[in-house]
Amino acid sequence: MKIVVAPNALKGALSAEQAAHAIAAGLRRAQPELELALLPIADGGDGSAEVLVRALKGDLRSAPAHDALGRPIEASYGLLPGERAVIDVASASGLGRLAHDERDVFFASSFGTGELVHAALAAGAREIILGVGGSACVDGGLGLLKALGVRPLDAAGHELLPNARSLPELARLDTSALIASARSARWTILCDVDVELAGAIEFAPQKGARSEDLPEIERGLRRLGGVLGAGAAFAGAGAAGGIPASLCAVLGAQAVRGIDFVLDAIGFDAALVGASLVVSAEGRFDAQSALNKGPVGVARRARVHGVPTLVLAGAVAEFAAMNSDVAAVLSITREPCELKDAQTLACAWLSLTAEQALRVFVLGRAAAAAP
Amino acid sequence: MKIVVAPNALKGALSAEQAAHAIAAGLRRAQPELELALLPIADGGDGSAEVLVRALKGDLRSAPAHDALGRPIEASYGLLPGERAVIDVASASGLGRLAHDERDVFFASSFGTGELVHAALAAGAREIILGVGGSACVDGGLGLLKALGVRPLDAAGHELLPNARSLPELARLDTSALIASARSARWTILCDVDVELAGAIEFAPQKGARSEDLPEIERGLRRLGGVLGAGAAFAGAGAAGGIPASLCAVLGAQAVRGIDFVLDAIGFDAALVGASLVVSAEGRFDAQSALNKGPVGVARRARVHGVPTLVLAGAVAEFAAMNSDVAAVLSITREPCELKDAQTLACAWLSLTAEQALRVFVLGRAAAAAP
Repeated sequence: MKIVVAPNALKGALSAEQAAHAIAAGLRRAQPELELALLPIADGGDGSAEVLVRALKGDLRSAPAHDALGRPIEASYGLLPGERAVIDVASASGLGRLAHDERDVFFASSFGTGELVHAALAAGAREIILGVGGSACVDGGLGLLKALGVRPLDAAGHELLPNARSLPELARLDTSALIASARSARWTILCDVDVELAGAIEFAPQKGARSEDLPEIERGLRRLGGVLGAGAAFAGAGAAGGIPASLCAVLGAQAVRGIDFVLDAIGFDAALVGASLVVSAEGRFDAQSALNKGPVGVARRARVHGVPTLVLAGAVAEFAAMNSDVAAVLSITREPCELKDAQTLACAWLSLTAEQALRVFVLGRAAAAAP
Repeated sequence: MKIVVAPNALKGALSAEQAAHAIAAGLRRAQPELELALLPIADGGDGSAEVLVRALKGDLRSAPAHDALGRPIEASYGLLPGERAVIDVASASGLGRLAHDERDVFFASSFGTGELVHAALAAGAREIILGVGGSACVDGGLGLLKALGVRPLDAAGHELLPNARSLPELARLDTSALIASARSARWTILCDVDVELAGAIEFAPQKGARSEDLPEIERGLRRLGGVLGAGAAFAGAGAAGGIPASLCAVLGAQAVRGIDFVLDAIGFDAALVGASLVVSAEGRFDAQSALNKGPVGVARRARVHGVPTLVLAGAVAEFAAMNSDVAAVLSITREPCELKDAQTLACAWLSLTAEQALRVFVLGRAAAAAP
């Protein structure tokens, strides 16, 4: 029997690759003779670069950059075969870089991500693939563009700081000094949410915005939309605080569904041939999952090829299970516990749940064989 | 497809019957056309009377009694067809009657259970079936016997109070005033643990014993063993603070494995005919479960008949799953949470997990049917 193991990362607990190995170990305990295809996935969220680098035998590089608050850091990007680079916005500009009380929605900038892009272009990349999950800023991509030579200007022609505080004053983007390699590069943005530019406001609170901050952020996003024009009006434009909006409007970037891009890149469809089951996983399976997130994207694709998908998740919201692409959903949480303990135990629990689930699957097979 | 639904109660959350209905509803959502046999089970633990009364169409009666601390209460017992009565020690003498800080291991008595026995005998019962789980006392059954006329005496012939404090002074049991109907009755004790009389000490801490109390309790149990003699030396004698020891030695009671007695009584084996799967459940599946507890007993019996058992549990200890009689174990807990919340949500979670598990089972069946 062949099973495709295609988990997302379980945020805060396991990388996608760790999850794949934990599931595989559990499945093998239930059935030693299995053909397993391990294809860790990502959907444009934090960790996409690592997944693509490993799947495509790329090269994970480190480069100096600045975090969302401008502090010097070492961040990473991936070089892939075919003069491509893959960069997670979260690597330099992510919430994971900040302590909870350091979050500063008005000041935070995606400048550091632009520095990584710059490094990748300098290393020879001619296509930039950007994973947008987990960012700490709502700067509409001003920081990223600024690092590549684009100057945000107010109505009087004065240059603005590349952050959310400046957005309401934005009058135009001066691209005269945009570096040539950025202009000529092909840009692909892996979106993990479907929001329009204005919808970026939804994610502002988790980036530190208080409710009294929201009107100004909203004004800034509206202003940015006006400056960018029609090129910024698409589903996904509002991911990562509006980075896709600017990159599409200014650089002609293509925004794509992250999970579908990754599945194509790692050869998921080919792996489905002859498979009886796909096992996917993620940290939390909920209403958001039903949109563009990894396991549902996996299940949708697998279903087209007639292979059912079982999703294992740290937390399962009640009605999320109703998505018709997913054949079954089980939680790996084995007892009432604190989130921290669940994260510590996630590897063992994921493995044990995969084992028990396959036992149930095999019981069904045996029942069919019985007279 | 036929499935036997045979859950234990999920203590603190669902009765066995509620659990059976929750599981059945989930299974039917996954597969509307199922033949379901609902057989809620008990293993001698709290709730055994209710399960037997419902399964055998008996009559649940209420009677005045006293709780383990001697406070007047209304408790219940069941009258079954065939002049039998079934009584949970927990009904009158259970920990569930006491607030946590009221537990008093030396003072607590099983007298109230004796009052229920008295009431059942007065109502015409000629066989007493006693479920011993969940008791609040370690009185060696002195209280129960006292309510039926047996007097515990010290070496000087003075009567002792029927509690754990008296046990070290116990010299003999005066059965001259034992009521005739109790003497002539057939006694069956449903044990849910395999401990010898001395092993009753293991459960003393959960009944309020501090570590400094244990030597005196141990002395009392040893003394009781000496008074009762060989008739008290058997596995199960130490359940419910030693009640089986005294009832077997003094009244010739038969101690049986609770789960096996219940499975026979409810016609479990007959229900297995033609079944593809048994679904059982309990609150916590752990090393103790591997002994005499309900779901493992169910699985052992079902396996003899070639039917696999899936156990759903609120909490699953990691290595409990290794019991070879149980085909698979899944936790119903769907996310990190507090025990209290898990208990509140147990009905919905049990139902959803049954649904998802059956989906996996059906996937396995379909995979077998595929070319």
